Amino acid sequence: MDNLADILELDDANGPPQERMLQILSEACRLFATRGFEGTSMRDIAAECGVSKATLYHYFPDKDAIVRPLVMGTTKAIYGQVSARIDPAAPAVERLRQFMVETATFFERHRWAWIAAASVFWNDPQARRRRQRIEWRDRYEALLRDILRDAIERGEFRPVDPSLAGRLVLSTLNWLPRWYDPSGPLSAAEIAEQFHAMIVQGFKPPRGRGAG
Amino acid sequence: MDNLADILELDDANGPPQERMLQILSEACRLFATRGFEGTSMRDIAAECGVSKATLYHYFPDKDAIVRPLVMGTTKAIYGQVSARIDPAAPAVERLRQFMVETATFFERHRWAWIAAASVFWNDPQARRRRQRIEWRDRYEALLRDILRDAIERGEFRPVDPSLAGRLVLSTLNWLPRWYDPSGPLSAAEIAEQFHAMIVQGFKPPRGRGAG
Repeated sequence: MDNLADILELDDANGPPQERMLQILSEACRLFATRGFEGTSMRDIAAECGVSKATLYHYFPDKDAIVRPLVMGTTKAIYGQVSARIDPAAPAVERLRQFMVETATFFERHRWAWIAAASVFWNDPQARRRRQRIEWRDRYEALLRDILRDAIERGEFRPVDPSLAGRLVLSTLNWLPRWYDPSGPLSAAEIAEQFHAMIVQGFKPPRGRGAG
Repeated sequence: MDNLADILELDDANGPPQERMLQILSEACRLFATRGFEGTSMRDIAAECGVSKATLYHYFPDKDAIVRPLVMGTTKAIYGQVSARIDPAAPAVERLRQFMVETATFFERHRWAWIAAASVFWNDPQARRRRQRIEWRDRYEALLRDILRDAIERGEFRPVDPSLAGRLVLSTLNWLPRWYDPSGPLSAAEIAEQFHAMIVQGFKPPRGRGAG
């Protein structure tokens, strides 16, 4: 089960998260992630949780009420967890490594919630919530671009375009939850570690060696 | 409108593609891409095309019959178009550039079809078709891994792990259709060109310069 209690953004109306509520959210995000938001009904969620539809409706009036804490929660939590684990005194190249490894670790812990949130994002009917989500997402992406800009200023990186370089780094991370195999030989963090080394060093051999 | 006629994998039962059929497929893939496969009904597709439901059913008995030529078509077509445009006599580093630029160009031309196909893939009820699709996808990915292995053997690249390096390259491309803005300053091919340079050179400045 996902560590959902750490990351949920519950409405005050929901009250403190209860075990049953967390179970519902956890099963729902696995269903949303694998069948899509539109492909999952309240009936499916109730069946998967082994509860009656009446019990389900006691906690959540509709699918939107289930998905809202997931979407806002994952977006705020990834910013909070990643930014808290970056050492501001470290060289920029090391901060980039921390950003990548912590993002991958977050994806590994909250894989279903993340895929569910990403796949429902465009279906979220609440535009205000969507704007809020974009603000938190922008904050997370700014974290990365600041590291890249700093790395270029200090001469740790070549003068690459920070915005496009940021897209490259985010792409390697954002695609990870879709192909990553939790039973494979490498953890998500180890993959991020290797991606970091590849991106920083490049594929070319060091000068003076090879045909490059 | 998407250049769908180039890439569709129509059943014999469909006969040669007719203009109306292509219009339906084109509108349907835009709807699948933006609302999800499950979130789009036959009624939505008919309304979007400005045809009656009877006319729609004349061409396609259900949504699966619409999505099947899209899923198989895009997967075979990307392999066909990318592999045909790689110069086997070029250095591996240049072949990697061709692979990346041609993939991005394909995404640019067939953006809706690609997103639709990717988002419905897991909902495709026909397991045999799914296996076929995976075979074509594997062929496309093998193309990339062969280039990387060759680059390492020739000393054009450092001995990176070809499988993980391939994932890195594919991630930068696969995420592109989701964030790419067709009205932005760079074409998808130009972005792929810059990603190629970043991946090959790395972010670090050349030896002897900078703090890296």
